[in-house]
Amino acid sequence: MKRNKGKLIVLSGPSGAGKSTVIAELLKRRDDISFSVSATTRQPRPGETDGVNYYFKTTGQFESMIAAGEFLEHACYAGNHYGTPRRPIEEQLAAGRNVILDIEVQGAFQVRSAMPEAPLVFLCPPNMDELERRLRGRGTDAEDKMLIRLETAKGELKLAREYDYIVINDVAEEAAAELDAIITAEQCRAADRIEFITEE
Amino acid sequence: MKRNKGKLIVLSGPSGAGKSTVIAELLKRRDDISFSVSATTRQPRPGETDGVNYYFKTTGQFESMIAAGEFLEHACYAGNHYGTPRRPIEEQLAAGRNVILDIEVQGAFQVRSAMPEAPLVFLCPPNMDELERRLRGRGTDAEDKMLIRLETAKGELKLAREYDYIVINDVAEEAAAELDAIITAEQCRAADRIEFITEE
Repeated sequence: MKRNKGKLIVLSGPSGAGKSTVIAELLKRRDDISFSVSATTRQPRPGETDGVNYYFKTTGQFESMIAAGEFLEHACYAGNHYGTPRRPIEEQLAAGRNVILDIEVQGAFQVRSAMPEAPLVFLCPPNMDELERRLRGRGTDAEDKMLIRLETAKGELKLAREYDYIVINDVAEEAAAELDAIITAEQCRAADRIEFITEE
Repeated sequence: MKRNKGKLIVLSGPSGAGKSTVIAELLKRRDDISFSVSATTRQPRPGETDGVNYYFKTTGQFESMIAAGEFLEHACYAGNHYGTPRRPIEEQLAAGRNVILDIEVQGAFQVRSAMPEAPLVFLCPPNMDELERRLRGRGTDAEDKMLIRLETAKGELKLAREYDYIVINDVAEEAAAELDAIITAEQCRAADRIEFITEE
């Protein structure tokens, strides 16, 4: 008997919170969830692969996709475009699979408008010193860009209360375990499960 | 750093859904949660111990406790009184521990009125045939009482949609794992966690 519907889980939070690492841990724990690959105009970081981490697009390509209505959400962040292609998500959910999005804060609220049933999870660093340490450690941004990210992060932390859940990423495995529990709990939502008990 | 508040979790559902078994499994999985012992005027079943499974009371004792305002909720169910003593719960929550209640459906909605932040979990049997099998297998009720329980259960299943979560108890260990995830997820609620990130 099928008892779970595919759920869209939105993970966002400041740059440096560790979203990619936590998602990688989550995918080790569950095989019923797919990562939604976003499109972006930012440059690939070392180790990032087109089509795996992001679809890397030129600004022109990205703007054509916006015009064609191909995004569930899109936002401009620190001078780059980021967007979530709509169709792959709709296909996964229709097949009963869960999908996790790694998106910026602005995008998270756009997804909530489009799909109010999708839980929003805010991933945050244990404290601001640790966030700064992680951003510097990445070593991919010039100092001025790093300072912009840090100031943006402070503003984003104030939005955490608007999310459904907050996960504090001190140890990635523990943060992933909490995210795992959130997905399981969301699958137990009465509104989704009621049909499985009234059918019988 | 303390990041979790004590949560009150309400587990209810029809008689025969397996609430006691699932709670026993849950208590094996987590050491941060206590079982709230209810008071009742019903007779102990074989193996039940006063002060462990229930506080067994006479009708007179129970009515005195009602008059003294000692119950968080109380209800009359299949001819017996059931009630949740308030003070032990308040003490556990204040100490940061989680508390789980095993209560009848009427009582669950009383708890929601008194403590709207407490999640309500509906535990249900996989189907009505299995429920009947479990009630008969228990062998503690006369046939007429068993039929009353079965009819009551059918009515209660219709209330499941009013709960926050539904857990289907096919295999007790799996149901306990879902309940475990629900508690972890509830501890990640933004409304509760926001103070731990804005304090810093």
